[in-house]
Amino acid sequence: MVEVLDSYLQDAWQSADGPGDVLRDASTGEAVAALGSGGFDLAAAHAHARTVGRRNLQRLTFQQRGALLKELALALKPHVDELHELSYATGTTKRDAMIDVDGGVATLFSYSGTGRRELPSSNVVADGPLQPLSRDGSFVAQHVLTPLQGVAVHVNAYNFPVWGLLEKFAPAFVAGMPVISKPAPQTAFVAELLVRRIAESGVLPPGALQVLLAPPADLLDHITEQDVVSVTGSAATARLLRTHPAIVDHATRFVAEADSLNAAVLGPDATPDTREFELLVREVTRELAAKAGQKCTAIRRVVVPTELLGEVADAIGAKLRALPVGNPRSDDVRVGALVDRRQRDTVLERIGVLAAAGELVTDPGTPDLVDADADVGAFVGPTLVRVDDADAEAPHEVEAFGPVATLLGYGDLDDAVAKVARGRGSLVTTVATHDIDVARDLVRGIAAYHGRVHLLDRTTAKSSTGHGSPLPNLTHGGPGRAGGGEELGGVRGVHHHLQRTAVQGSPDLVAAVTGTYVAGASRREGTHPFRMQFEDVAVGDSVVAGPRTISQEDVDAFAALTGDTFYAHTNPAAAAANPFFDGLVAHGYLVLSAAAGLFVDPDPGPVLANYGLERLRFLTPTYPGDEITVTLTCEEKVDRVGRDHGEVRWDAVVVNQDDEQLATYQVLTLVEKRDKVEEA
Amino acid sequence: MVEVLDSYLQDAWQSADGPGDVLRDASTGEAVAALGSGGFDLAAAHAHARTVGRRNLQRLTFQQRGALLKELALALKPHVDELHELSYATGTTKRDAMIDVDGGVATLFSYSGTGRRELPSSNVVADGPLQPLSRDGSFVAQHVLTPLQGVAVHVNAYNFPVWGLLEKFAPAFVAGMPVISKPAPQTAFVAELLVRRIAESGVLPPGALQVLLAPPADLLDHITEQDVVSVTGSAATARLLRTHPAIVDHATRFVAEADSLNAAVLGPDATPDTREFELLVREVTRELAAKAGQKCTAIRRVVVPTELLGEVADAIGAKLRALPVGNPRSDDVRVGALVDRRQRDTVLERIGVLAAAGELVTDPGTPDLVDADADVGAFVGPTLVRVDDADAEAPHEVEAFGPVATLLGYGDLDDAVAKVARGRGSLVTTVATHDIDVARDLVRGIAAYHGRVHLLDRTTAKSSTGHGSPLPNLTHGGPGRAGGGEELGGVRGVHHHLQRTAVQGSPDLVAAVTGTYVAGASRREGTHPFRMQFEDVAVGDSVVAGPRTISQEDVDAFAALTGDTFYAHTNPAAAAANPFFDGLVAHGYLVLSAAAGLFVDPDPGPVLANYGLERLRFLTPTYPGDEITVTLTCEEKVDRVGRDHGEVRWDAVVVNQDDEQLATYQVLTLVEKRDKVEEA
Repeated sequence: MVEVLDSYLQDAWQSADGPGDVLRDASTGEAVAALGSGGFDLAAAHAHARTVGRRNLQRLTFQQRGALLKELALALKPHVDELHELSYATGTTKRDAMIDVDGGVATLFSYSGTGRRELPSSNVVADGPLQPLSRDGSFVAQHVLTPLQGVAVHVNAYNFPVWGLLEKFAPAFVAGMPVISKPAPQTAFVAELLVRRIAESGVLPPGALQVLLAPPADLLDHITEQDVVSVTGSAATARLLRTHPAIVDHATRFVAEADSLNAAVLGPDATPDTREFELLVREVTRELAAKAGQKCTAIRRVVVPTELLGEVADAIGAKLRALPVGNPRSDDVRVGALVDRRQRDTVLERIGVLAAAGELVTDPGTPDLVDADADVGAFVGPTLVRVDDADAEAPHEVEAFGPVATLLGYGDLDDAVAKVARGRGSLVTTVATHDIDVARDLVRGIAAYHGRVHLLDRTTAKSSTGHGSPLPNLTHGGPGRAGGGEELGGVRGVHHHLQRTAVQGSPDLVAAVTGTYVAGASRREGTHPFRMQFEDVAVGDSVVAGPRTISQEDVDAFAALTGDTFYAHTNPAAAAANPFFDGLVAHGYLVLSAAAGLFVDPDPGPVLANYGLERLRFLTPTYPGDEITVTLTCEEKVDRVGRDHGEVRWDAVVVNQDDEQLATYQVLTLVEKRDKVEEA
Repeated sequence: MVEVLDSYLQDAWQSADGPGDVLRDASTGEAVAALGSGGFDLAAAHAHARTVGRRNLQRLTFQQRGALLKELALALKPHVDELHELSYATGTTKRDAMIDVDGGVATLFSYSGTGRRELPSSNVVADGPLQPLSRDGSFVAQHVLTPLQGVAVHVNAYNFPVWGLLEKFAPAFVAGMPVISKPAPQTAFVAELLVRRIAESGVLPPGALQVLLAPPADLLDHITEQDVVSVTGSAATARLLRTHPAIVDHATRFVAEADSLNAAVLGPDATPDTREFELLVREVTRELAAKAGQKCTAIRRVVVPTELLGEVADAIGAKLRALPVGNPRSDDVRVGALVDRRQRDTVLERIGVLAAAGELVTDPGTPDLVDADADVGAFVGPTLVRVDDADAEAPHEVEAFGPVATLLGYGDLDDAVAKVARGRGSLVTTVATHDIDVARDLVRGIAAYHGRVHLLDRTTAKSSTGHGSPLPNLTHGGPGRAGGGEELGGVRGVHHHLQRTAVQGSPDLVAAVTGTYVAGASRREGTHPFRMQFEDVAVGDSVVAGPRTISQEDVDAFAALTGDTFYAHTNPAAAAANPFFDGLVAHGYLVLSAAAGLFVDPDPGPVLANYGLERLRFLTPTYPGDEITVTLTCEEKVDRVGRDHGEVRWDAVVVNQDDEQLATYQVLTLVEKRDKVEEA
């Protein structure tokens, strides 16, 4: 008897009513585990997430959740090897398992960084600039992003049980949404080990993650309008779930990431004597070998100049024939097994459909399996089908989710674009070219059909992360056949779990909602805000400094000191001829520097550094003789977890004697904390 | 016989096969027009949009399309009065028609500004910062947004035939997508007049806009994965179209904006003696009067402290009873007719359901109609239903799309949030409060359920644009019951029609795709780029200037001249104690100013002004004695239509003698054009 997988629900491991399907080693056919049959109270799981999970998560800030993700990543690192070891049973090589396991942990680190570097120490993100809505400034609006008040339900594919779970979990967690994850049955035993290690780490707050290792049952019936449903899988699965009544009735956010007919295009410049030709051949070979082609991003269509069909077929064919196929536990093996025999049968059937439209360059038979038996393992040899018929539909419609690609010809660049577009939406296409005109025209032509385009040339031969690798800081997803969804993409992946709301009202009330100062809101003048430590300075604390006259002598001295002798500051006739000026003007940088001179003083204090400026605009020329006054107001504080200083952004407005705005900008500073982080 | 409405398809007015429903004056019952019965070749309309329309639109830039929208708005302005006049037949008062007609034209102006101020003079938008993907800088990624290659299909509601068509058209047009619009039947004759005037203006390129004034027939059957379907209407219509097979099969972008149970909340501070109490009463009254309550944003639920139910009922009841109802052609009338008798019957039936849960404060009967006959017009008196039963479901579920609202009580603020949330997603809620704590807690609690929240207090009594008004620069839409969509929101509304694609590759190839310089791409040094006019300077043109030593004397002189005597520049011991510095450092602004001094010279030239900086970061301290060198490279050019100068953004990198980056930033300049705009 094999172990029946438990599910992790309501912060406890729960046993299924009984055993369901037996899961077998993809190479040897030995039983590895059995899937639970279900019988769980999923309404209770939803309720747990919506109460305990949501409360625990949303009492933390984006910053704090980001910091926890790093803790989780560190807690998982020691378990990478045992996850690799268990992954062999899914048919994957060590190299494949690294994509999954190491890639998953890397995604946690990446989203930890996103939370800690790019998001505020609150649960409200200001989105875009303040919108003035009345002439008198009394009515304004600010778009804000706040966490959805529901559950993120994740339905995963079998090919990446670790990465798949973590890449969906990480952005939802940073956003503040509890997750219920439903891994695919075929590789659920790997997901179970991952979740055991996560649970043992104790890093996550109760309710943050629940994992159903059993059939979905009524999982989606409890969906509401505050939830996000995110599905990775076949186009058919995505279509089915998209029309689930609960999702349709509640207009629930639905994200699908489906297998698509991704392409690789050989640019017309990439003739057989070029490095790019060789790189394309290598990339296609790699994509068919990795995970035995069971990647939603894998190259399915190789699109090359028609006159090169033969040479490309020969080159890729030779490489594919040289790939050792067999038991992934052998170090020699490059192509492991498919996940199970059923998947093998489906792939072989689809190869048949593709081959009917053309001819096999290499075939799925594998006479020389390494350490494996073709009668028990789910092996398919890397297969390339050459299709000369330009009108054939199958290569653009039939996806064999295994080590299978078709080879197609194109005429001119427009035809190449049209061929790629016939995939009706893909996750990614690679373009092999070293010609900037080809890159521009091809990519601009195909971009709308893709979530990602990978340009491959001699420059990036070594540094490219490859066609098939989604990266946490880049969007992953694509239109149409690819599911129409978008995941990851750095902070965008967090935003997918937030609701955008336009908040209109008086500056004071809008500022109260955002937790930041907005133009026109009340300011407090008292102790100079540069004299206060991070904990003590408050949003709205302000100083008005000046006036100071900017004289002609100042302008001359500034020009002499800095070398900035631009004619508008030095040549009265030329300055007067400028359409924007009435004569000599002061340097913008002099105004900026003199304004700083008004609000700083020489005494040491808690402000440690000015590390930058944002959105500086010079709005009105400053003429010699003008008097400038600056108002500096604490606009936003961000408490970066684990640092001895916080970030304070200041709103700065410089006006002249007629109260005309000369310059507006945001000053970025680091301010010392009163309470230092404990020494390690 | 009345006129049968033609449809504007393939750039021509086409006659329907025969007459369909007769459309009647909402107040008098007179026949106004007849809807066409259809019989159009909508496959041809789609094909026309996808070929002629797309080609014509995408050969223009965002800038140019933005400029055309202004021309269109100017062309429509002279026709505002005739549109007002015709609108009376739909039951709307002059004031109501202004929301529709003037509001629609204003939206064109607004999106013209968005196109011309916020988007590039190309069809590629860089989205977010460059992502370095390799340590050596040879592999990078840039997210880009490019126009979808399909059609935007718009299905509109009857209540705003002008605004509804234009608010969906404008962002799609700026984005470069051809539009097929399907106005609602009840008010199609107003849409027809609008489209006649648009067509007569000749402003739009062929294929940019087609309008179907007939039943939808197979309009959605031709949808592909490159299209956007945007629907405004009832929740039931939205649900139906969301599951249309073509939309589901292609994972087509689907945007729904549905009627929702919007709320108005009286803050606990807003007792009957406050201005906010009076303002809430006024706002609710206005919302029931405007368009006779036929607005998807109208207030449906008035949520007040339970102990104030009686006083609020009295105050709103008195106002509602004083509203004159009748023929909208009369200047006295505040509440016109519903769109037709069928709508009246539906509203009366739903009032019955609501009243069964509570009691009528005012009732739908209208004994004193102004200039109208209750037996032929579609009149409903403004109706308030008080519901004391806290568990009643109807007020949170039943929407009477007419001058109808319910009045509900709440206990504490958490209960107020819970009550509002029971609407399961709304377009907008108004919160009447002058208390910043109430504003913060209530709005943060309800934000995730809304696309917009309107804070109303004494400060904004005069300046507020009101609860019910979507604004082009603010998002419009909401989760769940409100349809789960988002429209408008300034440039966001354009982005809804663009595909985001992560483009990976070498800096040179990525730069070719984006049309902007990216860090690491090839630069060209030759003529100083400040010596070239706008047409001549090219992305990648660059100058390296320096080195120059920043001496202690320079720092001292800069401190003396600017007054910036911050301790890090003036007090060696304090500077050394700073965790980021090893001793006295030069002012960041001195580095910035000296770098400018290196790349400018005194001769007059085509660079007219530096109007700002973006993303300035000081990365390494500059110590006295350091030598600085600056590299300035043309990063992006934006050709603002109709100006004698263009905008050029420059990438600036300042390094020290060890090639460490001291500062990076973007310099924003205005550069004279060689070809001046013709004098008018």
